[in-house]
Amino acid sequence: MLIVMHHEATPEDVEAVCARIRKLGFEPRPMPGEQRTAIGLVGNDGPVDPARFHGLPGVLRAIPVSAPYKQVSLEWQAAPTIIELANGTRIGGDAVVMMGGPCSVETERQLMTTAEYVAAAGATVLRGGAYKPRTSPYSFQGLGEDGLKLLAKARDVFGLAVITEALDEASAEKVAEYADIIQIGARNMQNFGLLKHVGRLGRPVMLKRGHANTVKEWLLAAEYIVHAGNPQVMLCERGIRGFDNVTRNVFDVSAIAVAKTMTHLPVIGDPSHGTGKRELIVPMARAAVAAGADGLIVETHPEPTEALSDGQQALYPQQFHDMVRQVGQVAQVLGRPLAGQ
Amino acid sequence: MLIVMHHEATPEDVEAVCARIRKLGFEPRPMPGEQRTAIGLVGNDGPVDPARFHGLPGVLRAIPVSAPYKQVSLEWQAAPTIIELANGTRIGGDAVVMMGGPCSVETERQLMTTAEYVAAAGATVLRGGAYKPRTSPYSFQGLGEDGLKLLAKARDVFGLAVITEALDEASAEKVAEYADIIQIGARNMQNFGLLKHVGRLGRPVMLKRGHANTVKEWLLAAEYIVHAGNPQVMLCERGIRGFDNVTRNVFDVSAIAVAKTMTHLPVIGDPSHGTGKRELIVPMARAAVAAGADGLIVETHPEPTEALSDGQQALYPQQFHDMVRQVGQVAQVLGRPLAGQ
Amino acid sequence: MLIVMHHEATPEDVEAVCARIRKLGFEPRPMPGEQRTAIGLVGNDGPVDPARFHGLPGVLRAIPVSAPYKQVSLEWQAAPTIIELANGTRIGGDAVVMMGGPCSVETERQLMTTAEYVAAAGATVLRGGAYKPRTSPYSFQGLGEDGLKLLAKARDVFGLAVITEALDEASAEKVAEYADIIQIGARNMQNFGLLKHVGRLGRPVMLKRGHANTVKEWLLAAEYIVHAGNPQVMLCERGIRGFDNVTRNVFDVSAIAVAKTMTHLPVIGDPSHGTGKRELIVPMARAAVAAGADGLIVETHPEPTEALSDGQQALYPQQFHDMVRQVGQVAQVLGRPLAGQ
Amino acid sequence: MLIVMHHEATPEDVEAVCARIRKLGFEPRPMPGEQRTAIGLVGNDGPVDPARFHGLPGVLRAIPVSAPYKQVSLEWQAAPTIIELANGTRIGGDAVVMMGGPCSVETERQLMTTAEYVAAAGATVLRGGAYKPRTSPYSFQGLGEDGLKLLAKARDVFGLAVITEALDEASAEKVAEYADIIQIGARNMQNFGLLKHVGRLGRPVMLKRGHANTVKEWLLAAEYIVHAGNPQVMLCERGIRGFDNVTRNVFDVSAIAVAKTMTHLPVIGDPSHGTGKRELIVPMARAAVAAGADGLIVETHPEPTEALSDGQQALYPQQFHDMVRQVGQVAQVLGRPLAGQ
Repeated sequence: MLIVMHHEATPEDVEAVCARIRKLGFEPRPMPGEQRTAIGLVGNDGPVDPARFHGLPGVLRAIPVSAPYKQVSLEWQAAPTIIELANGTRIGGDAVVMMGGPCSVETERQLMTTAEYVAAAGATVLRGGAYKPRTSPYSFQGLGEDGLKLLAKARDVFGLAVITEALDEASAEKVAEYADIIQIGARNMQNFGLLKHVGRLGRPVMLKRGHANTVKEWLLAAEYIVHAGNPQVMLCERGIRGFDNVTRNVFDVSAIAVAKTMTHLPVIGDPSHGTGKRELIVPMARAAVAAGADGLIVETHPEPTEALSDGQQALYPQQFHDMVRQVGQVAQVLGRPLAGQ
Repeated sequence: MLIVMHHEATPEDVEAVCARIRKLGFEPRPMPGEQRTAIGLVGNDGPVDPARFHGLPGVLRAIPVSAPYKQVSLEWQAAPTIIELANGTRIGGDAVVMMGGPCSVETERQLMTTAEYVAAAGATVLRGGAYKPRTSPYSFQGLGEDGLKLLAKARDVFGLAVITEALDEASAEKVAEYADIIQIGARNMQNFGLLKHVGRLGRPVMLKRGHANTVKEWLLAAEYIVHAGNPQVMLCERGIRGFDNVTRNVFDVSAIAVAKTMTHLPVIGDPSHGTGKRELIVPMARAAVAAGADGLIVETHPEPTEALSDGQQALYPQQFHDMVRQVGQVAQVLGRPLAGQ
Repeated sequence: MLIVMHHEATPEDVEAVCARIRKLGFEPRPMPGEQRTAIGLVGNDGPVDPARFHGLPGVLRAIPVSAPYKQVSLEWQAAPTIIELANGTRIGGDAVVMMGGPCSVETERQLMTTAEYVAAAGATVLRGGAYKPRTSPYSFQGLGEDGLKLLAKARDVFGLAVITEALDEASAEKVAEYADIIQIGARNMQNFGLLKHVGRLGRPVMLKRGHANTVKEWLLAAEYIVHAGNPQVMLCERGIRGFDNVTRNVFDVSAIAVAKTMTHLPVIGDPSHGTGKRELIVPMARAAVAAGADGLIVETHPEPTEALSDGQQALYPQQFHDMVRQVGQVAQVLGRPLAGQ
Repeated sequence: MLIVMHHEATPEDVEAVCARIRKLGFEPRPMPGEQRTAIGLVGNDGPVDPARFHGLPGVLRAIPVSAPYKQVSLEWQAAPTIIELANGTRIGGDAVVMMGGPCSVETERQLMTTAEYVAAAGATVLRGGAYKPRTSPYSFQGLGEDGLKLLAKARDVFGLAVITEALDEASAEKVAEYADIIQIGARNMQNFGLLKHVGRLGRPVMLKRGHANTVKEWLLAAEYIVHAGNPQVMLCERGIRGFDNVTRNVFDVSAIAVAKTMTHLPVIGDPSHGTGKRELIVPMARAAVAAGADGLIVETHPEPTEALSDGQQALYPQQFHDMVRQVGQVAQVLGRPLAGQ
């Protein structure tokens, strides 16, 4: 931490800052300059909130110079976290993982049909929402536990792993019972109670980035889960809010690349939510893997125009198949195989 | 709902859209044009998801022309919702309501001191966080139920009402037991399980706008609470994410004015979180009331530089006092008194 | 400037940074810490680009601690800049200035009618576009010099001052010939050639903030004009790009308040472009003045629904009159009169 | 165009809208519905400004259903625009074009060194700024015409084409004299006078997307150039403003993919400005081509840490070489060669 003082700060102001630093258990190190003084805080300052200095007389800024996240950082652990699922899929290693399935689990027929072609295309993880976070209380809210049972059945039949979203503590426990990966959605990225709860459930977690959250906040949210005892966390970029409605969101591909320079956790891309438009999913799936994503999660439906939710961002079966093939070729350029192949 | 077709859409495409409209229980009304056809959906289309039409062959756009929120809209109820608290404060009527207090409840002495000068300045509601949502797991997380007890004590001594934040279902029940208003924070605006839960608790709720949520999404989140049985909801604008770090957030004063044209619910402004800077709070408090806010919630602390959280956006006692006076004068220009005066 | 080093930076890295600082003509001041070293740059570092240090081995960040703008800052000049116009209007002093008129000058009748009621309502400056920046090449582009002549005529008849936009060097010279204030629009805020040019014309300039420019960039753009020799610059906040299309822009009222803490230049608010909606103009006009604006510029038209451009953000004559009255009352709360009254 | 009426609009309101449509030379087509009426405007409505209807009594919204850009749209011309340069480089065809060079032309030695390794790596276009748009008037502003002469010399020696930025009409004429492509920077994307001017110069133009401009506005800006007589326009995505300072901008890779679905013009990606960080350039270069970019423009410098501007987003020579190789492999997955290879 560096505390930069106003140019008109008095020696008393500087001393007051030093006193506060000492009170917090650290050693102050003032550096007088021609225009202003800066004061360093020596020691492991991770847990110190810069706000403790804002507003002290004469303080211009308090600048944290260590990352506030710890256990998820590459400084803490240089080797990549690898998450291994029951069906043998390893996420975060060399291989790029493909996850596909419908926005919502709707019927047994819909799900089994989808799981069959998703597996045939070469994906190893099946997605499908059983508990749906919907902007309007009047929209379809998902099948709940019945949906989980269908997912478990599809897993058993087709040898896939299963990922599905939890909305709250109760659904998280249900999801942990049936699924291989608990998904925390963008709207819950800073639902800290839920993060702590899934941190105690011992199941791998996929943490989606919030619509308007910085990469640092995303890592801190992951830190909540790891701190609660669960190191099996993967991140998922799914688009941020932008000013242009030509796409549903701004799929922030750079965030994938930048997160890989900051954390050892796997990073997945979601071009379906990222763009919201079917015709953009395949190019952006290629782009995400080209940028370094460890995997993709993509919506697909046997008949997208009949889907109960988000049909416009689901691939047709043949498109899903083509996407896996193209993504595999891009991964190869980076020297990476597809998982399960 | 209007479904606008591509200019090259075929008659079969148009008929398929009409068929889907009929299947959903509505009546299609096609309008052929020189360049393209639009198809109206007649009936109460509130619950129809436009996504049901996206992706159908030949469809360019599906445009909802009724608001998807219902019970919170001015069309549903023209008269303003007025929320009456135990200490006589009425929120949403003519009078502008002043709420003040520390970011976090820290100690009995800190809270009682604050409550005393907040009441003396003319405010009628005391704020103070007992359960704190913190970006980092290493930051101070609040006193929990002990904080609620201190709030209740301050209320009894100074005749104030109390507002404090709930983070999850468990804390919501505790808050409902001790406080007059349950606050739902920005990060939980779309925590739909929590919204439904506070919709059943029967306590007034203040719903803060999410960092990157539209006014429409905010109203739909309020609709969740009302739909669950609780009509006593007030909205609170507290700043949206922007690109300029000269302020902590962009305090979206226009959102206050525009919300008042769309809903009968009271709208409160929070210039502390909105700006994140002490020197901007008083001007922006005046601005929010000038724009039509029904009240303000402002952070204040007896010694802001000693605060355990967010001290840089808390007013000094004298500043709080001045703010109430100035805001009262602005309210008077609009023909509104301050609550409790 | 503070250069913060990576924790694994070597003594050679530190020395290389010091050497560069010396080469730039300043004195380095290294401060070793337990985790990392920071190096101060002593001297008047305003002109040093932090990018000169980014990318040097071992450098984590270079942090400018002096404002990069100079002459427009409050540190440079504590007293407010006051701009005096030919008709006696003083901008930037105690009085709040009202400017009104149509988006575009359309006809003599339209302009004279508008000027008459604008003056009668109590405004002292007439706005009206003669050169129009239009997103589409197929939209109405303005009357050009004929429009300027009409503005000059209205000025003479009604004793108003005149403000109108220049788009390029040629139109700037024409505008300087006919008008009292040259307006630089949001899209040209960083058209540096034009800024320098109007810096040499000797006419007061109103510099609108760009759609996505920070307050600091805005001040630096003003610095271009002042640096070129023209100290008569006023700023104008007119809304930034946001994610919610419920308003045309996000009218950033806080930017008015924050700019007043950074610069001695007058700051004007434009609630017409800021909101894009007629029903929000009056509340947001009140809010801007409540936040500390030195004046307002508002669109009004005798028949807004007949306007050739931007009719939906123009007030009806009676609304303009009411706005001036209400704004005057709000200004009074701050101890400020309206200009010309 | 569809004009959607308020549910309480009167028959007189509807008739007034119809009358206005007729007055504009089109045919109105009203469609009464149970809740509200919509009115279609039949004919080629491209030039009609929706704002002509906003604010008419009873009008809820006017929705343009044809694209407002014409000549740049895929509906106007289905075949891709191919721009051929003097050195044989074809932009917009099958081959992916690589452009590289320093942010600013600094010295003959710097530029010739760079041009040599840029050509050797396989790029066919040399970039380098001679006229620099700088946020601060105190930053280095470029060498001007001397820089252009150095670029021309490098072109002659190494067989490269040359691209460099024009800031205003005077520099545009100079650039047209020396360079193969005139670059219009992000800050000038809506400098309409400059767009018209380069539309008359007959040189290929690269139009960078503004920091906060929608894809539609970008296409309309290109339309200005084409409309003025110059069809040789390419677009360049270079990052939009975001809320997270972990990158300089948000490199909007999806905008490349979406633009390719809307226009026949070539689309180039600029991962240097897009990310602002050297370590992200190579992954994002791969991503842009994977998303469908027709080429890349990337900053590189023989000694980035000595660069007079933007050194932190310039590749080292070896990195540039590696990037071209990797991008070539990604292009191959899409069945595209690199230009000149």
